Amino acid sequence: MAIELFNNGKHMCLMFNDLVDDKTDIAVQANQFLIVDNGHGALLDPGGNMTYNGLLMEMHNYFPPKRLEYILASHADPDIIASVNKWMIHADCKVVISKLWARFVPHFCSVGNSEGRITGIPDEGMNLPLGDTAIKAIPAHFMHSEGNFQFYDPVSKILFTGDMGASIVSDDEAKLTVEDFNSHIKLMEGFHRRYMISNKICRYWVNMVRELDVEWIVPQHGKSFKGKKMVKQFLDWIEQLPCGVDLMTQDNYRIPK
Amino acid sequence: MAIELFNNGKHMCLMFNDLVDDKTDIAVQANQFLIVDNGHGALLDPGGNMTYNGLLMEMHNYFPPKRLEYILASHADPDIIASVNKWMIHADCKVVISKLWARFVPHFCSVGNSEGRITGIPDEGMNLPLGDTAIKAIPAHFMHSEGNFQFYDPVSKILFTGDMGASIVSDDEAKLTVEDFNSHIKLMEGFHRRYMISNKICRYWVNMVRELDVEWIVPQHGKSFKGKKMVKQFLDWIEQLPCGVDLMTQDNYRIPK
Repeated sequence: MAIELFNNGKHMCLMFNDLVDDKTDIAVQANQFLIVDNGHGALLDPGGNMTYNGLLMEMHNYFPPKRLEYILASHADPDIIASVNKWMIHADCKVVISKLWARFVPHFCSVGNSEGRITGIPDEGMNLPLGDTAIKAIPAHFMHSEGNFQFYDPVSKILFTGDMGASIVSDDEAKLTVEDFNSHIKLMEGFHRRYMISNKICRYWVNMVRELDVEWIVPQHGKSFKGKKMVKQFLDWIEQLPCGVDLMTQDNYRIPK
Repeated sequence: MAIELFNNGKHMCLMFNDLVDDKTDIAVQANQFLIVDNGHGALLDPGGNMTYNGLLMEMHNYFPPKRLEYILASHADPDIIASVNKWMIHADCKVVISKLWARFVPHFCSVGNSEGRITGIPDEGMNLPLGDTAIKAIPAHFMHSEGNFQFYDPVSKILFTGDMGASIVSDDEAKLTVEDFNSHIKLMEGFHRRYMISNKICRYWVNMVRELDVEWIVPQHGKSFKGKKMVKQFLDWIEQLPCGVDLMTQDNYRIPK
């Protein structure tokens, strides 16, 4: 079922948290998002083939899928946009993704289906007009993907952080906000240490995000961080976390016997 | 048309270089590979939806696709395995990929199709029995994907390096080997500087590969590096290249105005 993160009658942010069929625990839980402003809609990280049918049906209750203007993709992983071919067949939408992945997205697609429909975001980011507002595509390169963007909605003040802040939890838990930051760390530490690329990059990101008016950090997996205090706790934590290449040594690069 | 990289009658390595429909220049060229040993077959980085039909037809001339034992995936990008659902429907193969992506691959798939069929490679790599030989999955994490493997064939002494050594060229050029290393640099430098993660990691990788008997480096995009001299030139070049997070500064992380 869709969760209303924000709704003032003209502007709405919805989250879908339970569409990955993870009963067998073979696929990682993932959140998908719909942003609507004055009748204009964008899907954010719509997910893979497992979520397509469910998302199409669920969003129908709020917004006609055929009228989607954008598919916004934080990066090009399968849990982010493996369903992109189906969405592009269903709607006349554009796909907006880092310019680093603009020529890789067609590999998801039937021949011809993506032609002229992929907008490559330059490394410095951009503003994407949507209805009466503009969604900001904010640089998040190497967290984890080399060409990576987060999306900031200036109306709800939600920062959709993709894999940053992700936690590995069940569908039922993913719809909740983090209440006790310290006890939540164990659900995200392993992921961030291995999938985030370097602490230097995390610090650049924290410095940037501190300049933004963020009320809610909502990642693509697991629970979200609501309120200025919780946002600050997350920034303070990731700012000091060694990760990725920081932790690699020659021992990680040996020919298997 | 398939290119025979190696064939001694019992062991064969084939490359497919012209299956991406890049006439419109919207999708990046990519190479796919088939390794057969004594009647046992593995497809390596079979590619996305654009290459599926062509690869299925082409490989039919050499090996029955239904009898494939493995899909070997260097990582989880669309140009690597966006076609995986189709291959898993067609053949009773297993998919072998970094354990970091084992729970992401099902997002490419129809519900249930990947259950029990994904082998997660541990970070230290492994040996994969194929016919009378064993293909080595060699750690290549952060080059570029966090969980990344290259595949070494001890019979042909080919190291299939995935994105490492990739060059951006046309189909016609991709089937060639590099003749003049210095003039080839301009076709790969931009890609390696932006998509490879850090020079420290490249140096660990070079140290490891120098201990291996490599006759031929064959990347997933563009031309290959044949012969010990050319392999050495590539290793010497990448060993000194600053890339990825080495080149990022706070200026790369600013809120777009």
